[in-house]
Amino acid sequence: MAKNIKSRSEDYSQWYLDVIKAGDLADYAPVRGCMVIKPTGYAIWEEIQKVFDAEFKRTGHKNAYFPLLIPYNFLTKEAEHVEGFSPECAMVTHAGGEELEEPYAIRPTSETVIGHMYAKWIQSYRDLPVLYNQWCNIMRWEKRSRLFLRTSEFLWQEGHTAHETEQEAREETLRMLEVYRKLMEDVLALPVLTGEKTAGERFPGAVDTYTCEAMMSDKRALQSGTSHFLGRNFAEAFEIKFQNRQGELEYCWTTSWGISTRLIGALIMTHSDDDGLILPPKIAPVKAAIVPISQDDKFIDEVLLPKAKEIAGIVDNLYGFNHVVIDKDFHMRPGDRFFTHLQKGVPLRIELGEKDIKAGTARLVRRDTGEKIDASLNDLEAVISRVLDEEQANLYNKAKNFRISNTHFAKNYDEFKDIIANQGGFVEAYFAGTPEDEVKIREDTGATPRCIVTGDDRTGPCMITGKTGRMTIFAKAY
Amino acid sequence: MAKNIKSRSEDYSQWYLDVIKAGDLADYAPVRGCMVIKPTGYAIWEEIQKVFDAEFKRTGHKNAYFPLLIPYNFLTKEAEHVEGFSPECAMVTHAGGEELEEPYAIRPTSETVIGHMYAKWIQSYRDLPVLYNQWCNIMRWEKRSRLFLRTSEFLWQEGHTAHETEQEAREETLRMLEVYRKLMEDVLALPVLTGEKTAGERFPGAVDTYTCEAMMSDKRALQSGTSHFLGRNFAEAFEIKFQNRQGELEYCWTTSWGISTRLIGALIMTHSDDDGLILPPKIAPVKAAIVPISQDDKFIDEVLLPKAKEIAGIVDNLYGFNHVVIDKDFHMRPGDRFFTHLQKGVPLRIELGEKDIKAGTARLVRRDTGEKIDASLNDLEAVISRVLDEEQANLYNKAKNFRISNTHFAKNYDEFKDIIANQGGFVEAYFAGTPEDEVKIREDTGATPRCIVTGDDRTGPCMITGKTGRMTIFAKAY
Repeated sequence: MAKNIKSRSEDYSQWYLDVIKAGDLADYAPVRGCMVIKPTGYAIWEEIQKVFDAEFKRTGHKNAYFPLLIPYNFLTKEAEHVEGFSPECAMVTHAGGEELEEPYAIRPTSETVIGHMYAKWIQSYRDLPVLYNQWCNIMRWEKRSRLFLRTSEFLWQEGHTAHETEQEAREETLRMLEVYRKLMEDVLALPVLTGEKTAGERFPGAVDTYTCEAMMSDKRALQSGTSHFLGRNFAEAFEIKFQNRQGELEYCWTTSWGISTRLIGALIMTHSDDDGLILPPKIAPVKAAIVPISQDDKFIDEVLLPKAKEIAGIVDNLYGFNHVVIDKDFHMRPGDRFFTHLQKGVPLRIELGEKDIKAGTARLVRRDTGEKIDASLNDLEAVISRVLDEEQANLYNKAKNFRISNTHFAKNYDEFKDIIANQGGFVEAYFAGTPEDEVKIREDTGATPRCIVTGDDRTGPCMITGKTGRMTIFAKAY
Repeated sequence: MAKNIKSRSEDYSQWYLDVIKAGDLADYAPVRGCMVIKPTGYAIWEEIQKVFDAEFKRTGHKNAYFPLLIPYNFLTKEAEHVEGFSPECAMVTHAGGEELEEPYAIRPTSETVIGHMYAKWIQSYRDLPVLYNQWCNIMRWEKRSRLFLRTSEFLWQEGHTAHETEQEAREETLRMLEVYRKLMEDVLALPVLTGEKTAGERFPGAVDTYTCEAMMSDKRALQSGTSHFLGRNFAEAFEIKFQNRQGELEYCWTTSWGISTRLIGALIMTHSDDDGLILPPKIAPVKAAIVPISQDDKFIDEVLLPKAKEIAGIVDNLYGFNHVVIDKDFHMRPGDRFFTHLQKGVPLRIELGEKDIKAGTARLVRRDTGEKIDASLNDLEAVISRVLDEEQANLYNKAKNFRISNTHFAKNYDEFKDIIANQGGFVEAYFAGTPEDEVKIREDTGATPRCIVTGDDRTGPCMITGKTGRMTIFAKAY
């Protein structure tokens, strides 16, 4: 059907890029590995921001803004951190027409500069917890970029918190992981597995890293959000100390957690089909496109457009301002007009022609299934609301069933290699290996450990070492 | 009263910094000329973003995101532009562990890289107008920084539009100037003069620059927002061409317009007093602080806090979620608790003690006048709403009267120099000089032309050249 989009079976990578282009979501920038997020794509990010920001605030967090540039020596204060991020840094060496005495890195993440400020601000246990977040741009130089998934610059939020006790910091780490899981599932319709990362996959400088892992429609994994328990690593590196209740100085316990514009990639690769973008109604910036159809200018002006505006009012009433469009491209063929909205992932098309007006109905067309519903104009609010709820639920269930049916258990390493090579998807296996074993598995198969799923307490003989290991999810990943 | 704040008459610069510190709005970053915006300050920026963004969308604009880095050769394509911005650029010369073949500038403004993308996207008159905006960070290296007013990195929005005709582009330039004026006056309570910049004060690369000029409480001017008619300068530099209705290729007409975190500086220096920050209710993140006062724990838990929550519900009902705080610092003295909210600029304090409960009232205290109002608890919603409306109007009127009474007419250059030296404020004078004359005036007096006020058609002999000139506003400016 969609000649501007390769099919997934033919070329998944090209399909992904074609969906982005057909949906007018993003374009390449004239800067190595960077992208421009176009209005249709940026509107999705604005919806994501709105939903997550409200929940951060509800859980007691406040937004702040920290500097883009980080003195390079800050990065070197935490040994694992600099090893992880230094190779990806973009460096500012000149400014104001002069060479700088010390270079600055453009932030690849902000634990270091925020740690420096926290050390200045936190004096006593009365100042704790500090629960701040920032929405900002981030730069990690990429050799091979991929729109939304891996670009040298991307947008994200990074929460950074400091606590009096280890327990509080651990609770915060898991609380924010749960906030991520809930919103990804309930709003983005992304069924995610949450769990702990293995040692080889931890954030550089973290004691424990937790992750939300989603399965894309090519059965690969996409890490969609992470939450880190940083222990006292950054507190020690940056001297974030407080006077405790006994009057003694001690180091804080800190956490950090983030989601990024990568989530737009997750939405595309979870829900879309060979015709183009599909967006879950709750996150779709445009919930419905109203397409009045007629060649009769008088009828258009006197009957169709007033009725279309009435229907737009119903959508406004359900979802607020700015979530509906009325298509006035009467010079185009109806099929082409339908296709534009379809490729932008609009969940509901509402067709309105002369026949519909006579019958007192409008034709609703679902983006996910293509199902057509002729609904009475008197009953439209209830029907629109019901259909969009069903579409939301359907997209979630479909993705969840896809993940379940593409998750397999491997009882030994031969079986593991066979599943990865021939079936793909998520593989459950017992694992008790080292980061070196993780490298070996990746070299052998291309797969990496994604997480030890929260609440899954199964143990058994590790497929590599034979020692007792935890049940671990592996997959090829983006 | 406020020992942590110098008085304005004693040291205005120090007063400004003290108000920021006492209000917990911002701090210095460990990066030359940069700041950290703390949650209390950032919340003001979020309110500003909400108000302006809604109006941009209502006037048909869409948000997008363009790259942080700009290939340096892009800047050189517009001669005036590179001359204006090149000395302020921070340059990325290394990334991913390697020296770059061509350096990137961190965006000092984005006309160039956006122009490059527009050239790619715009083909036909049917693609016009393009009405995009982005909210982002900007870097202009500063030798001498000043929190919110002049920092190497700051946050802003930049609108960039492309049009079919000169007239449409000129209309857009003035439409956005008017959006700025209206929101600055109605929401931020900043009375601003709008008008055209003289040649020496234009944006580098603009044909015409329009500005909103506000008077601070030390009588200096602060440029609070600008809107530029760029003619075809950037279209020619970046080959932004379209096929017109006659089938011929021609260059677009473009505009750009911006406001920044500088507006927070304008709010501080327009409204605040020697006790600290004052914020107009419509832009204040916290509209009211409820302060229950008692030493009786049982009374606090059973009567005061439930009643405080009830009052918070009234504020929620009027202004939405998250705009009220209940102060539970019972271990502190009431006076100190009052002072905290006062210094954060909270427009209304609502005191609630045993006597108030008995009398069925609460004591409302206005931040701007200190006026105390004992209001019946039954009548609170109406009273809170009325008092905050009055406070908003009072702050605007006070600032406007201050500007009017500190604006003087100078009929010749001697009088001009005398007024600038001895009275300060805004000086109206006829002017028909060159950019070189503007430099001379600045060197003589420290004052610069702020704008030729829109709608002021008065002409007379230029105070410098004697030629017929327009009535022009001059002032010392931030």
